Amino acid sequence: MAAKYTLVIHAGCEGITRKYYGPEAEQEHLAFLRKSLAAGRAVLDGGGRGLDAVCAAVEVLEDCPLFNAGRGSVFTHDGIIEMDASLMSGADLAAGAVAGVTGIKNPVRAAALVLEKSSHVLLIGQGAERFAENFGLEKSDPEYFQTSRRRKEYLTAQKQAGEQFGTVGAVCFDRAGNLAAASSTGGITGKQYGRVGDSPVIGAGVYADNASCAVSCTGEGEFFLRRVAAKRIAAMVEFGGFSLEAGAAAGLDNIKALGGKGGLIAVDKAGRTAISFTTRGMFRGLARQGETDRVAMFGPPGSWH
Amino acid sequence: MAAKYTLVIHAGCEGITRKYYGPEAEQEHLAFLRKSLAAGRAVLDGGGRGLDAVCAAVEVLEDCPLFNAGRGSVFTHDGIIEMDASLMSGADLAAGAVAGVTGIKNPVRAAALVLEKSSHVLLIGQGAERFAENFGLEKSDPEYFQTSRRRKEYLTAQKQAGEQFGTVGAVCFDRAGNLAAASSTGGITGKQYGRVGDSPVIGAGVYADNASCAVSCTGEGEFFLRRVAAKRIAAMVEFGGFSLEAGAAAGLDNIKALGGKGGLIAVDKAGRTAISFTTRGMFRGLARQGETDRVAMFGPPGSWH
Repeated sequence: MAAKYTLVIHAGCEGITRKYYGPEAEQEHLAFLRKSLAAGRAVLDGGGRGLDAVCAAVEVLEDCPLFNAGRGSVFTHDGIIEMDASLMSGADLAAGAVAGVTGIKNPVRAAALVLEKSSHVLLIGQGAERFAENFGLEKSDPEYFQTSRRRKEYLTAQKQAGEQFGTVGAVCFDRAGNLAAASSTGGITGKQYGRVGDSPVIGAGVYADNASCAVSCTGEGEFFLRRVAAKRIAAMVEFGGFSLEAGAAAGLDNIKALGGKGGLIAVDKAGRTAISFTTRGMFRGLARQGETDRVAMFGPPGSWH
Repeated sequence: MAAKYTLVIHAGCEGITRKYYGPEAEQEHLAFLRKSLAAGRAVLDGGGRGLDAVCAAVEVLEDCPLFNAGRGSVFTHDGIIEMDASLMSGADLAAGAVAGVTGIKNPVRAAALVLEKSSHVLLIGQGAERFAENFGLEKSDPEYFQTSRRRKEYLTAQKQAGEQFGTVGAVCFDRAGNLAAASSTGGITGKQYGRVGDSPVIGAGVYADNASCAVSCTGEGEFFLRRVAAKRIAAMVEFGGFSLEAGAAAGLDNIKALGGKGGLIAVDKAGRTAISFTTRGMFRGLARQGETDRVAMFGPPGSWH
């Protein structure tokens, strides 16, 4: 008998308060989360792989101008957009990632090409773009990615040296019993010097292994990199006897101990999920086979629409 | 009472057979390993940090034209040299890494600057180079890095599509009781599309955490990336009750199960070491406070000069 699938998505966790997001904005954001779940469900209901479902779900979030990935990504110090994305298959530990790419409409698709069509795991910058071009991956002009909101944040950040971060991601347990995880981001506003965060780093911002769980993280990337957070949580489950929920909580505590904050989504081979954050909210969604979609953005973690 | 220090170095593990390296070549390579240990010892004997000792030891290996890091790095598909390096401090999990840099004489020093002078962990490409330049880090012309041996391998690789890999690295337990790890590489001969391996990826090719151990890996980078190998070994020690030796062996078994091979060095807070490889040899060295330096390049792992 095939397993029932579980798909979890997130779209970042910074600054999500009712003061900043009114009822209309809330509905607008939740609608995109539902659209992302629907794209993942379409793959899974058709008998497709979780690996393709997380990719489809993330693609919708990349296309949405409201989240910091693909269209709507934050601006770098130099006023351009540089994106990172990754994808991992828990069945065979196949992985693909790109970092510092510009002009690729859906960076997660580039990560999927690295996973499926190359012997490599991580490609960066113009080399990664040339690789994606070889496979005819859709390109977009700089204007496509740039939204007026992000431009404003960029101009403000230049003055205040503030940092805005955000990521989108998805994890899935599919009907074949396999785990998968994906992540995509524009990084942090005003980032300099080719800064890369945790999102394209296998083990830090993303990890999937059928032996433990699938994890996708969001938050202050440097802290997740230093903890190798996604792999750490998987290892606590695999070697430390932690439940998924306890591993996720311990993982975020580890980040907090370094002075960082963020959130994560995770799923294991029993379809159990962890949806956790140490911020005030997180854009999140959950789709289980045979159940109604659930979405939310404000805290606490357990609350759903 | 201060602890006694332990420093372990490696300089790659591919193709190290007596057929390829005669007695003269052996002495030449072992001399550079001794020079690297001496540089690390100079820091440690002066009461310096393990973090600075691994950096000094790796710098010597980068300057040596015989190993695949800094001078003597392998050529990319486009006939240039792109290098990666990383550094991590086990006391506070501070980390720094650079990927895809050209023209920086000692990439491990650039990683050290990222660790010490930036709020970031990973910088890539020209951005990383600009960052290093801001701190006046020494640059070198393309000709400095290119050796005739690597050019020959490159020209051969272009025809045979063969891949040559190699890395240098160091791990240390210092007199203050802290762990540190470093890694540096030119990657694989003929690499394309901005390919980055495990060496600059915290958790994959390098990891240091006083709670477990310090690890530096070498081998087929993609397999180490997919296993998040260094962090996996640290997690087996921290959460799984593995001894350092058993964790290192299990880590390399995990790589083998994916079809890959390689080696690693590790040290823990008791000064215990693991020096393991699934190849026929590995350039390696061990310096313990109050003991004579040991170096070796052929197998089996336990043999020393």
